[in-house]
Amino acid sequence: MSRDELVGVARGEVPADLVITNGRLVNVYSGEIYSASLAIRGDRIAAIGDVGYTVGAETELIDAGGHYLCPGLIDGHIHLGGSQLSMTEFARAVVPHGTTAISTDFYEIGVVAGRKAIRFALEELKATPIKVLFNIPPHAYLGHGALGNTNSISTEDVFEMLGWPECTGLAEWNVFVASIPAPGVRELTETAREKRMLLGGHFGDVSSAMANATAAIGIYSEHEAMSAEEALDRLRLGVHIQAREGSAGRDLRHVVKAITELGVDSRHFSYSTDEQEADSLVLDGHVDHKIRTAIRCGVSPMTAIQMATINAAEYFRISDDMGSVGPGKIADILLVDDLAEFNVTQVIANGKVVARDGKYVGEPKTPAYPGYFYNTIKIAGVTVPEDFAVKSPASSDGTASVRVIGVNEGSLVTEDRHFDLPVRGGNVQPDPGRDILKIAILDRYEASGRIGKAFVQGFRIKAGAIGSSFNPGQMNLMVAGTNDRDMSVVANRIAELGGGYVVARDGKILGELPLPLLGLFAEEPAERVVERLQGINQAIATELGSDFPGLHTSVAFVCLAVSIPTLKVCDRGLADVRVMEIVDMFL
Amino acid sequence: MSRDELVGVARGEVPADLVITNGRLVNVYSGEIYSASLAIRGDRIAAIGDVGYTVGAETELIDAGGHYLCPGLIDGHIHLGGSQLSMTEFARAVVPHGTTAISTDFYEIGVVAGRKAIRFALEELKATPIKVLFNIPPHAYLGHGALGNTNSISTEDVFEMLGWPECTGLAEWNVFVASIPAPGVRELTETAREKRMLLGGHFGDVSSAMANATAAIGIYSEHEAMSAEEALDRLRLGVHIQAREGSAGRDLRHVVKAITELGVDSRHFSYSTDEQEADSLVLDGHVDHKIRTAIRCGVSPMTAIQMATINAAEYFRISDDMGSVGPGKIADILLVDDLAEFNVTQVIANGKVVARDGKYVGEPKTPAYPGYFYNTIKIAGVTVPEDFAVKSPASSDGTASVRVIGVNEGSLVTEDRHFDLPVRGGNVQPDPGRDILKIAILDRYEASGRIGKAFVQGFRIKAGAIGSSFNPGQMNLMVAGTNDRDMSVVANRIAELGGGYVVARDGKILGELPLPLLGLFAEEPAERVVERLQGINQAIATELGSDFPGLHTSVAFVCLAVSIPTLKVCDRGLADVRVMEIVDMFL
Repeated sequence: MSRDELVGVARGEVPADLVITNGRLVNVYSGEIYSASLAIRGDRIAAIGDVGYTVGAETELIDAGGHYLCPGLIDGHIHLGGSQLSMTEFARAVVPHGTTAISTDFYEIGVVAGRKAIRFALEELKATPIKVLFNIPPHAYLGHGALGNTNSISTEDVFEMLGWPECTGLAEWNVFVASIPAPGVRELTETAREKRMLLGGHFGDVSSAMANATAAIGIYSEHEAMSAEEALDRLRLGVHIQAREGSAGRDLRHVVKAITELGVDSRHFSYSTDEQEADSLVLDGHVDHKIRTAIRCGVSPMTAIQMATINAAEYFRISDDMGSVGPGKIADILLVDDLAEFNVTQVIANGKVVARDGKYVGEPKTPAYPGYFYNTIKIAGVTVPEDFAVKSPASSDGTASVRVIGVNEGSLVTEDRHFDLPVRGGNVQPDPGRDILKIAILDRYEASGRIGKAFVQGFRIKAGAIGSSFNPGQMNLMVAGTNDRDMSVVANRIAELGGGYVVARDGKILGELPLPLLGLFAEEPAERVVERLQGINQAIATELGSDFPGLHTSVAFVCLAVSIPTLKVCDRGLADVRVMEIVDMFL
Repeated sequence: MSRDELVGVARGEVPADLVITNGRLVNVYSGEIYSASLAIRGDRIAAIGDVGYTVGAETELIDAGGHYLCPGLIDGHIHLGGSQLSMTEFARAVVPHGTTAISTDFYEIGVVAGRKAIRFALEELKATPIKVLFNIPPHAYLGHGALGNTNSISTEDVFEMLGWPECTGLAEWNVFVASIPAPGVRELTETAREKRMLLGGHFGDVSSAMANATAAIGIYSEHEAMSAEEALDRLRLGVHIQAREGSAGRDLRHVVKAITELGVDSRHFSYSTDEQEADSLVLDGHVDHKIRTAIRCGVSPMTAIQMATINAAEYFRISDDMGSVGPGKIADILLVDDLAEFNVTQVIANGKVVARDGKYVGEPKTPAYPGYFYNTIKIAGVTVPEDFAVKSPASSDGTASVRVIGVNEGSLVTEDRHFDLPVRGGNVQPDPGRDILKIAILDRYEASGRIGKAFVQGFRIKAGAIGSSFNPGQMNLMVAGTNDRDMSVVANRIAELGGGYVVARDGKILGELPLPLLGLFAEEPAERVVERLQGINQAIATELGSDFPGLHTSVAFVCLAVSIPTLKVCDRGLADVRVMEIVDMFL
């Protein structure tokens, strides 16, 4: 879009392509709401206010009918792997909810298939109405060794990606990560800082001294705050808070109390998703859902909308392009019929109508995926139940004292819990009566037959097994269940599908979602993915007995052996994140 | 400063260099005030909060004694020529008031002596505690031709300066300026935008269509708003408001009503000075004075301080370095004993104490100026009174109908006024009885003898003449007075001094301030400059009869023939800014 044409429209010398009349402008820049019209030329806004003079013979007119006009919504931190949707289908799912920009890393893709696959996905997403703020979480690729990396991406790759025009900087960064003794990690931090790129943070539950240290190296955002107090502590250090609301980390309701109860300046708050499952994205919503949640928690609609727009845009230093509705900005505009309910009725992105009444307009074209996106689950042949046995060190019947991964609903932080578990035939048994499952991680890259095993408490599964090929860290093949037979059935079926989510009980598959693209993404449309997830979740609820919300994401994060405390599991066995080591499960 | 050392201090492994205890932190980032201590290492803050653990044997301790701890203050838009002080003396004058960063252009220097002189001044200022955000006003150098440029700086020079690491972008930019048909002007805008540099604006009193057009080309700041309504109009377009409070443009009190009365979000407001005379800088204060003024106008102390710190830093996208007090930020910290009075008692810049109780600590070293800084006033020999005569077109006695430049106190905008002026001996006379002076601009570059003349109303001078070699636009030699004899005396003395401010009456010099450096800056210390200015102002008040505040700056702006409406004067004669042409003074 030539700026000359914008100037021409503003001066009444060139007609607008699109004029939206009769709207109530939510001006997040001035903090006001007032009646206004907008003139758009190409992909940008040319003028706001009384713009009748910009209408020409060819100008398309949209009567907003008194609806609110809001800027497009920005997700400050999302990993797309958790959605099970291809890039195209992700866009088709969230654009009708008003999302027009996301900050994301494609790291699951990078972990499985390297830099070229990230580039492919980035191009796929860029072909949709969504603007991509690309960031790099180097620790996902470097320096964690066998517990956390797949060696799919080298230091050179990371430096290369840092130079991509879409790249805003590094992410998930903190003092621990910045001091990983991997080649290039120190230089990465310095290079990003010199280029004035953003160092996105992942503070976690750290001491005041460590939080100060993390801010001192220049990390000025945090999406891991889980309470108002934690948010306040970071905020006081000059750290922008991305309040998280995803399938497993549902921190927003707590974090916004810093605004509603502690009364701090709200401008340095925005939203993040981290991970959100497809059914929730489609049915609950995406950033619009976070706005509604914030408003329900007592945040004013203006502030809740500013968090999703201008606050995020100013943090990412892209406020000259997006985050508000004004001349010169990209024409990403939502029509919203009620501010408190934040019901998006129409979405304009890059100056074009892309969604109406919750439906995507037109059919986005899914690209032909390269061959290396398929058949990526490589395990050592078909498993048998015995592969999942956990031998007791005493090798006799009775009980064994075991360190168990303790899970709490709504949090990604696990606990180090200790239980005496029953031993039968020399094998330690899960104990569904005390909500303790067995969990196993199978190497999917080298067909090595390597299986790491542990016990986990808290998922409320009473029978059968679940499994998936999506789990942060290494994206290995994970199964969890009450018995080895169902775990083996699930593992074999996931391998057969080339990736997916599978639920089984009594040797029978009860539901499945094939994820043939890198073992991470469905090839089916979002609606079908949602149906399958609903089928799976129904089976888990009725046949496996669990009502744990965000179950898939929560189980997946138990496999992230190098980040977010405390006990985790990977294909090498039980891991303690505090020491970044494999530990003995037996006490 | 190595970030490792900062991390070491925060983690308690390396001692702090300086710890400030017992302060009340004005946390502009969170919008809170609370008790806190700070640990500093080198030039940056390492930790805030309870930092006793960072004190080592060598750590310097400052007991803040309950004083407030504020971030260093940022001036978003100042031209230094108006201060009459060398860069070093400017710093010595404003640092004790809490200024630690300014956005400036050195344009007067560039107009007189070109790019190398700008570089020299930039280095001089960088050697002080002040951080410099350098910007370029291309129209000051390009495209205005004989009315406005001195050809001291080429298009190539401007592109070269755009690449300097200190450069933040272009300034004083708008649709008119961006469309100047000078070589390179269009490319300058595009290059700056591509490099994501800032396009600082100068909207002025324009129509809604033109304001939209100016925002549409990506100009997102405005320091010319003169009322709350004008500020609101710009703000609604997504334009950051730099509320001006200088010697001539005193708009802050009006502009802040947008916050106090219209209730808009204050985060996109900061301060600008434009031009401020040395005596006012030293005695009234600099950004601290703007904070006090805003508070007196009903702005809360937190908001008034945010405007001078985090708001400006976020606009300039330097908030990772300055604008708040937090770990990782440059240690620019003020001790303030009372928030509403905003009395700065101590200034720490780059981690060092640089001012106490209004006094600069130590003696900053003035550099040796290059030879081309001296003897820059080149006029065609000594003037005689007859050189200043204005011939009447009728060339007979009686009256002549003349267009007169009309000046209003507190505004840089002039009016096009019409008067019948007395003619004696064929020459049109000033009319002190109706407050109409003669004003003349002498070419100082080519010794051409070119003198532009006009009449000006509003300065309340009843006798004698004033003059100076500082005046925005071309920095020619300006004299204004009630009679040709005193005007000639003043012009000759300024030329003799190699530049300066001079006041005379009845053929006698009543006061003078030599400005031997480029005809713009004094070589004397700030205190002596203030004394001289006070002497000059005293003479103007008692002998010339004028109490016009900000007189020097206001007169100077009457010579800016290419910007800010309406009538102006340059060495070519009376100019009309609306048409950018020399016009006949006779109606």
